[in-house]
Amino acid sequence: MDKRKVFLPQGVQDLLIDDCLLRRKMEDHLMETFNQWGYMEVSSPTLEYYDLFTKPPMLADGDNMFKMIDTNGKILVMRPDCTIPIARMVATKMKNFVYPLKLCYVENVYRIDKEQSDQKREFRQAGVELFGVSSVKGDAEILVTAIESLKSMGLENLTVELGHMKFLGAIFDSLQLDKELKHQLLRLLEEKNIIGIKEMTEMYGIDQEMAQLLIRLPRMFGTPQEVLSEAKKYYLTKEMEEALEELQRTIEMVQKYGLGECLGIDLGMVSQLEYYTGITFKGFTKDLGAVILSGGRYDKLLGKFGMDCTATGFAIVVNKLTKALKIQGNVDVPRRKHILILDSQYRAGAVKEAVDALRQGGNIVEFCMLKDHEEIREYMERRQVDELVRIHVDGQIENISIHENSENR
Amino acid sequence: MDKRKVFLPQGVQDLLIDDCLLRRKMEDHLMETFNQWGYMEVSSPTLEYYDLFTKPPMLADGDNMFKMIDTNGKILVMRPDCTIPIARMVATKMKNFVYPLKLCYVENVYRIDKEQSDQKREFRQAGVELFGVSSVKGDAEILVTAIESLKSMGLENLTVELGHMKFLGAIFDSLQLDKELKHQLLRLLEEKNIIGIKEMTEMYGIDQEMAQLLIRLPRMFGTPQEVLSEAKKYYLTKEMEEALEELQRTIEMVQKYGLGECLGIDLGMVSQLEYYTGITFKGFTKDLGAVILSGGRYDKLLGKFGMDCTATGFAIVVNKLTKALKIQGNVDVPRRKHILILDSQYRAGAVKEAVDALRQGGNIVEFCMLKDHEEIREYMERRQVDELVRIHVDGQIENISIHENSENR
Repeated sequence: MDKRKVFLPQGVQDLLIDDCLLRRKMEDHLMETFNQWGYMEVSSPTLEYYDLFTKPPMLADGDNMFKMIDTNGKILVMRPDCTIPIARMVATKMKNFVYPLKLCYVENVYRIDKEQSDQKREFRQAGVELFGVSSVKGDAEILVTAIESLKSMGLENLTVELGHMKFLGAIFDSLQLDKELKHQLLRLLEEKNIIGIKEMTEMYGIDQEMAQLLIRLPRMFGTPQEVLSEAKKYYLTKEMEEALEELQRTIEMVQKYGLGECLGIDLGMVSQLEYYTGITFKGFTKDLGAVILSGGRYDKLLGKFGMDCTATGFAIVVNKLTKALKIQGNVDVPRRKHILILDSQYRAGAVKEAVDALRQGGNIVEFCMLKDHEEIREYMERRQVDELVRIHVDGQIENISIHENSENR
Repeated sequence: MDKRKVFLPQGVQDLLIDDCLLRRKMEDHLMETFNQWGYMEVSSPTLEYYDLFTKPPMLADGDNMFKMIDTNGKILVMRPDCTIPIARMVATKMKNFVYPLKLCYVENVYRIDKEQSDQKREFRQAGVELFGVSSVKGDAEILVTAIESLKSMGLENLTVELGHMKFLGAIFDSLQLDKELKHQLLRLLEEKNIIGIKEMTEMYGIDQEMAQLLIRLPRMFGTPQEVLSEAKKYYLTKEMEEALEELQRTIEMVQKYGLGECLGIDLGMVSQLEYYTGITFKGFTKDLGAVILSGGRYDKLLGKFGMDCTATGFAIVVNKLTKALKIQGNVDVPRRKHILILDSQYRAGAVKEAVDALRQGGNIVEFCMLKDHEEIREYMERRQVDELVRIHVDGQIENISIHENSENR
């Protein structure tokens, strides 16, 4: 009788021993990379005010958040995102820190969203945020950090596609779309629904040149060179040209760093997050059909909290990364030496010193709490115990071969 | 204008850089200790069903949980405790693992409870659970692990007081109290309200011998020897004698291990958690007026999930431990060498190799994204940068003295 489905709410999961060990190894590794790149960890609470995420220019949709009423009657949510809380933290508590300010985090986020993470409602994100660098240097820094973080974990076949909010934004501005039509068009772009876009351009009498670009947009992805040279064939506003120029310069910097080979451009890229203002990006591997990495520039977000500060950052979906690494066979958790102490009657006063000595170098050292010989043997086999020892009254450690132990009984 | 009170819900907090670094160091250290003692990490979801915690023999009070309605109409809570979810996990998914099963965790728990953790509503617990050891060996193992974990963090003046649920339970059984009176008496004991207890014994005509013991109970704490010898002067049922015997044998084992000096007994100890069935304990330091450690035996909990398995465990309140260590001056986060790369134009294709080399040994290596000399100087001072370097086109690393840099401009 397996009752696990009855016992656990939808979209959440237990992490048993092996999965937990792997998660910790991955997070430690990511955090070490972030730290070595100069990013400093911060942590926001799980609970925040609903208003924080729903007032413009924040997340579009309050419907997919876990909401509850606080004891004071206000609406709380479980954080659906880490960037907005960190922006809040920076603007309200870290104004006087030295800038550029480089922060990182690893936290759970909560979303009732069937498209995210295999219908998971609680999932873990690790990411960095860079505050106070307005130039493409900042975008390149964030891209390089993201790619290095993923590659250092052993991820193979990484592709990072870049888009630009100003490119899309300029199209929308020139079309003077109202909010609802804008959302409709964004949805069509996200679905790469070319027929739908064509119908829309006809229905609303969008002018010929812009209509052509719009219909082509869902297919405007590929290598930077391909996409940039194709885009330049269309009628472009000044803002659109600037967006392409920024993309080009950022990509050149990443190429010069030595990590350019995984970069692509997708000019039809749409983000569910409404706070992005410049370059955005998403990272994939061909071995897993899911977004592992996402990020971008959000220069207006801190303004909501009264602080004028540019910002850019990325988030890695930890369980997607884990999944990809598992598929690629690139996960490997090192074993520790495992020692079992027999006759753990705590007989001698000197036990502590002996045990401390055995634990030197990171060994796992356990007291055997079983009596039956067959049970001990099974325990050793299943827990992969390497050594069986006995501590004598004088603190001396005696190694017992498992065979000898068998005969002694 | 400091808006932090407006921006953050009651009882939750941001962890800025230094606090976060300290928390990570503490948690890594605790987890390493747990691992070396043979405990394996698991993780339960933040969201669980309300019923899990409120149906007997669980937490008494559903009022102090954060509750919400799931999309399927069921009531969810943010976990107020880690032991019940792990018991659920063990009974539903880990029955076939090898026993004794030793698990550990570090998780946030959520309680709307003014008496907990400085009115905090979100706080972090790190703990272990031991399944399948029914003898006092298990209680001693858990106590030794708890004490070693705290001492290895540098905690001084630790006192761990032991109680026994069967001792209190036997009193209640012999008095045949109904549920409400039982709760009333527990509250009086918890408040060490001797006058209230006296009034109650008179009001309900409790017999002389038992009344004397009840009135004395709030004061029956001290060294094991003192308390045990005093308790034996009273009329004791067989169950009460067994409880004292278990306490004595457990304490002797911890003493023989070499950690007995911090142990005391408090026979009037009351726990807010209703699932305890045997030895319980709480850990303090005289330098902080708060419970840092709590734990005990809960042999009936897994039965709720249809698994017959004894269990014992403890939890450390991480922020209380941090607070105590700060008061005692025993916190110290090691610094890394910090290198800043000037002229980070990503000019050379060989930059990656040079940077990777600089990061060897765990150094923090950042690209300078500032242009103004004074800003760079301030950044270096405030971020405590140790070295300023330049990477040449051929990948060669040049050290720049800060003074030299000043003259060069």
